[in-house]
Amino acid sequence: MSYIKDDFLLENKTAVRLYETYAKDMPIIDYHCHLPEKQILENKQFKDIFEVWLAGDHYKWRLMRNHGVDEEYITGGKSNKEKFIAYCETLGTAFGNPLYHWSQVELKEYFNCELEINAENAETIWDWCNDFIALNAITPQSLIEKSNVTHVFTTNEIFDDLTVFDEIAKKDYKFKVIPAFRADKIMNAEAENYNVFVDKLGDVKTLDQLETVIEERLKEFIERGTVASDIALQTVYPVADRKVAAKAFEERRAGKTVSEDGIKAYKGYLTYFLMKLYAKYGIRTELHVGAMRNNNAVMLKKLGLDTGFDSIAEDGGIAMMSRLFDRLNDEGSLPSTIVFNLNPNMNAEIMTLIGSFQDSSAKGKMQYGPAWWFLDNKVGMEKHLKDLTATGHIDSFVGMLTDSRSFLSYPRHHYFRRILCNYLGTMMEKGEMTADEKLVGKVIENVCYNNAINYFGV
Amino acid sequence: MSYIKDDFLLENKTAVRLYETYAKDMPIIDYHCHLPEKQILENKQFKDIFEVWLAGDHYKWRLMRNHGVDEEYITGGKSNKEKFIAYCETLGTAFGNPLYHWSQVELKEYFNCELEINAENAETIWDWCNDFIALNAITPQSLIEKSNVTHVFTTNEIFDDLTVFDEIAKKDYKFKVIPAFRADKIMNAEAENYNVFVDKLGDVKTLDQLETVIEERLKEFIERGTVASDIALQTVYPVADRKVAAKAFEERRAGKTVSEDGIKAYKGYLTYFLMKLYAKYGIRTELHVGAMRNNNAVMLKKLGLDTGFDSIAEDGGIAMMSRLFDRLNDEGSLPSTIVFNLNPNMNAEIMTLIGSFQDSSAKGKMQYGPAWWFLDNKVGMEKHLKDLTATGHIDSFVGMLTDSRSFLSYPRHHYFRRILCNYLGTMMEKGEMTADEKLVGKVIENVCYNNAINYFGV
Amino acid sequence: MSYIKDDFLLENKTAVRLYETYAKDMPIIDYHCHLPEKQILENKQFKDIFEVWLAGDHYKWRLMRNHGVDEEYITGGKSNKEKFIAYCETLGTAFGNPLYHWSQVELKEYFNCELEINAENAETIWDWCNDFIALNAITPQSLIEKSNVTHVFTTNEIFDDLTVFDEIAKKDYKFKVIPAFRADKIMNAEAENYNVFVDKLGDVKTLDQLETVIEERLKEFIERGTVASDIALQTVYPVADRKVAAKAFEERRAGKTVSEDGIKAYKGYLTYFLMKLYAKYGIRTELHVGAMRNNNAVMLKKLGLDTGFDSIAEDGGIAMMSRLFDRLNDEGSLPSTIVFNLNPNMNAEIMTLIGSFQDSSAKGKMQYGPAWWFLDNKVGMEKHLKDLTATGHIDSFVGMLTDSRSFLSYPRHHYFRRILCNYLGTMMEKGEMTADEKLVGKVIENVCYNNAINYFGV
Repeated sequence: MSYIKDDFLLENKTAVRLYETYAKDMPIIDYHCHLPEKQILENKQFKDIFEVWLAGDHYKWRLMRNHGVDEEYITGGKSNKEKFIAYCETLGTAFGNPLYHWSQVELKEYFNCELEINAENAETIWDWCNDFIALNAITPQSLIEKSNVTHVFTTNEIFDDLTVFDEIAKKDYKFKVIPAFRADKIMNAEAENYNVFVDKLGDVKTLDQLETVIEERLKEFIERGTVASDIALQTVYPVADRKVAAKAFEERRAGKTVSEDGIKAYKGYLTYFLMKLYAKYGIRTELHVGAMRNNNAVMLKKLGLDTGFDSIAEDGGIAMMSRLFDRLNDEGSLPSTIVFNLNPNMNAEIMTLIGSFQDSSAKGKMQYGPAWWFLDNKVGMEKHLKDLTATGHIDSFVGMLTDSRSFLSYPRHHYFRRILCNYLGTMMEKGEMTADEKLVGKVIENVCYNNAINYFGV
Repeated sequence: MSYIKDDFLLENKTAVRLYETYAKDMPIIDYHCHLPEKQILENKQFKDIFEVWLAGDHYKWRLMRNHGVDEEYITGGKSNKEKFIAYCETLGTAFGNPLYHWSQVELKEYFNCELEINAENAETIWDWCNDFIALNAITPQSLIEKSNVTHVFTTNEIFDDLTVFDEIAKKDYKFKVIPAFRADKIMNAEAENYNVFVDKLGDVKTLDQLETVIEERLKEFIERGTVASDIALQTVYPVADRKVAAKAFEERRAGKTVSEDGIKAYKGYLTYFLMKLYAKYGIRTELHVGAMRNNNAVMLKKLGLDTGFDSIAEDGGIAMMSRLFDRLNDEGSLPSTIVFNLNPNMNAEIMTLIGSFQDSSAKGKMQYGPAWWFLDNKVGMEKHLKDLTATGHIDSFVGMLTDSRSFLSYPRHHYFRRILCNYLGTMMEKGEMTADEKLVGKVIENVCYNNAINYFGV
Repeated sequence: MSYIKDDFLLENKTAVRLYETYAKDMPIIDYHCHLPEKQILENKQFKDIFEVWLAGDHYKWRLMRNHGVDEEYITGGKSNKEKFIAYCETLGTAFGNPLYHWSQVELKEYFNCELEINAENAETIWDWCNDFIALNAITPQSLIEKSNVTHVFTTNEIFDDLTVFDEIAKKDYKFKVIPAFRADKIMNAEAENYNVFVDKLGDVKTLDQLETVIEERLKEFIERGTVASDIALQTVYPVADRKVAAKAFEERRAGKTVSEDGIKAYKGYLTYFLMKLYAKYGIRTELHVGAMRNNNAVMLKKLGLDTGFDSIAEDGGIAMMSRLFDRLNDEGSLPSTIVFNLNPNMNAEIMTLIGSFQDSSAKGKMQYGPAWWFLDNKVGMEKHLKDLTATGHIDSFVGMLTDSRSFLSYPRHHYFRRILCNYLGTMMEKGEMTADEKLVGKVIENVCYNNAINYFGV
């Protein structure tokens, strides 16, 4: 039996009661993830635990590299079983790492397996899980439904084929799958294959044409129920003069070399344009900042994007973020926005900044998103909750998401809920807040589910 | 009965004993606040709880905006009672926010009201407090005296009328009110109405004239007992050549447009000039850095300065702060200085920097001020104490202030003292420091009151 | 009897058991320190407690200045005894400061003295310790051997006389003393006496010549067993074109003034050159970043370098560090590297960055070094462990060092081990990790000693 008990992360009786009564059974809205909608549609049974657990998860790969595991056992030629065993060996002593918790919880919740993950148990777990998958016909649908999920917002490029969502809607799934709109691929003009992506939008040569086609595509998303959009930037750039941005874009389209300043001008302007457009259509913006991507060129060439070679960018850009929000606000075009930030040093800077742009158009119009990526762990979540409640209002918070490529990641919601209930329950037991559990319970329900439902209007 | 008990924030018996024996009854010196001296002189009875509690408090307004409250209920046309009730609704679930504690404590300490603040109790509290105010003739004087305050340092502009202080001195108040000298309005040359402020000092066209009049005004302050001064900057600027600064100032006075660089040069030089002047007259400098002000132009136009639209600036400027202190020190003109910093990321940078400029001219000549503004809460104070004691000497610390515009904010001193005693008491119970309570008690008394009295020499 | 008990810093029974069973008796490898090898060779008995404890320790001096002690009692003309007593007075109330713990532990471990250090006991401690030194013939050898140290890596300039190490090797010491290679003095081209240092390497006029002589000297170090090298930079600079660096170096050698940009180009290039060279010879790099040195020019003139006037630099340089590592990695020349960082804000940035350069050439090829200098305290270590385990793998960590100039600093290893065992033991008791003490114990032994031995291959 593993160390995960019913009161996992719940350090006192009040915390346990709050979790059991108000948090545990709330449904889940996953308002930002990277689940592949095609896989949801096809709904094929998984072959083995490797395929569903390790095949695409660069968080796990990274941990293995940190432990000196040979790349052959990570993304290389070794068999699924050998890779699985290497992961179990690594995980067995990864005390304090979020994967140490995630993996153990996932094993329990989805495979009913309570063996502790480590070198010794690796082979037994391999067999157990594969038997379980075969016996229970585990598919994407079964995993999502078992997790009590009502809405999944996938993240889709502007040029993605949306008919998949029409097909999914015809199924009798108990959850809705809705695309979130993302234009990053046509924003990142520094990318080598940039023009390939823009070409997918048709014959687009000028910024005028680009703006028109973006709006047209957005409308097609909205027809499928889209209420959210996504922008990822290392940092916010200043909003450039439209002419400067147009020149940079047009030169890039014409195959000319564009200066770094030109690229920034284009990205700064396009961020502004997109957010203004989102405001026009009532689309919430999910703005991701603070990641420094693809540090390792050797591995980028070998494995591509999103394979575990990213890191946290320098603290920076708060003044530019202020000016961006201020300008949009001044023009009456600041959309409801959730800022996801990867540098924990910026928590307080951003939280207090967005507090300067709240108004009554929504409860928590400007949101500071949950602890994300490298911060999506106990320490990061606890710091997030402390910073958020000290500078903002907990009852306005839209709560957790998965941001995951894996169908097994929903227990992160429960992980977050345990930490939330422990945070509040501990303050209650210490006499630092009301003892009125019903009042507290209502806030918990809001943070777990209701706030996000209301915020996105779904 | 609310959740605030006698042992609020005191988590063990040693902490309780330390607080009861050494901290609770120490007087208060409020060495930096924004209380309006005229109101202290006039000493009128307050009309209702709204007037004394919500009318001017942008901390509270901000929290309400964070919860989606309509501006009409914050600074708009709704009645005092409606606004008060809206605040109680917001506060009822603001778990973890400092106002959640401050407000509950203030209600208890000043109005003898132990009802929990929330939507349900709002109307009862409204009636209770207004009855209490009427019955007890609550005035500025009564609030300050009840709080056991011996000294109040108001913050005054260089051109303020100081006769108010002469009038106050004639009253039989049990506390002294002393102006702190501030020249910010004549430093912020970027402000639209800058010349209006400088005009108040007379016919000042050149930097020579400005320097002369600053020194004259400072002497007039000193005649009223001034021992402290105040400088607020987003960040420290490099000390410019005097000629460059003089040119910028003179052009600004002549109504010309001055470049951003010129403004910075002027501000950098003037900071240096002021601190040198303060050293000459033995005036302690209170240097505030790290705030990014007026993010929201729409609301600035509507409501003006200090209405809840500021935030924490980027971590930055430590190298320039080093050079400023080093130059003054090199010229034998570094005044005793308290640095108040709003960006918690800079705690360790600044604390270790000022540790490089200590000398025996004062115990803790260079001070790292207490957790301030957005950091003035339990998490911020605990981090401050940990950082301060790890990098400095707790027995040198001048302790807490209010930095407040409200006559109800003195319980923050007790809040800080509880956290201080809990910090030390917990280390004692854990065997991480001496068990000698008398020795510890002496340090507590020093931090609560004696150090500040000695530091300012009042 | 002082407050230091057997379970000091161990807050529960599991923590005590882990420490007693797995941590306490592990030997020590001090893989980075500033012990003077000549003193180890000469092995003279110390005269008094001042000489061994206070004479060269700028951490202690700094704390005294923070408490307003006159410089006469710190580095000035007062007697050893007067200075010692002044230190005890300061320390008596320095609650929360690492020296408050270090000093008390050192007194107990090396002098068998359990009196609490404070003003009252100062004179008794002075007598006790001096008697103890005389009676027990305390020398460098006895202190190092009593501390169960197997390897000491001193830090040596490129031009240092290495015959001292040959002499030490002939002694029957129970520990090895090995020089770590450092070229900082010939890297810091901005230093006034820079050319004096380069002159020690012979007639070096060009960058070609410099590179040749560096490699020659490194080989001489390697003959004495060198496996580690050291580079200290305020921040990482961009790798300049070799021609630009060569020009700057040659101008500097010719006595010309070199621009700040030229200096940076030279330092950026040389960092790259050195690391590439270290990779070639399998030498691990210890890269120190984040210190802003010599803030106080007055005291620099008076007391020289390393006398307590340094501080933590601004968070910065992560993008340049990424590019440096990436370029070396791309060329197959990234050495095993330990990054020591002084700005705690950069923990997460650097930890995630180095996680992008791990491979199976070593378990934890890229290391985030232990909490260092201003962070080498309970709060800093706990934050370090939390950040490290959340973003990396604890079982790969090479663990603690002293970085000290003092022969009394080895208890810091035990201090760290207590905090490590408390961190793990607490998670075990809370049900946040396995209850398998043997598995955990193996990790503890790895972090205490085995990992560093394997990492350095000694």
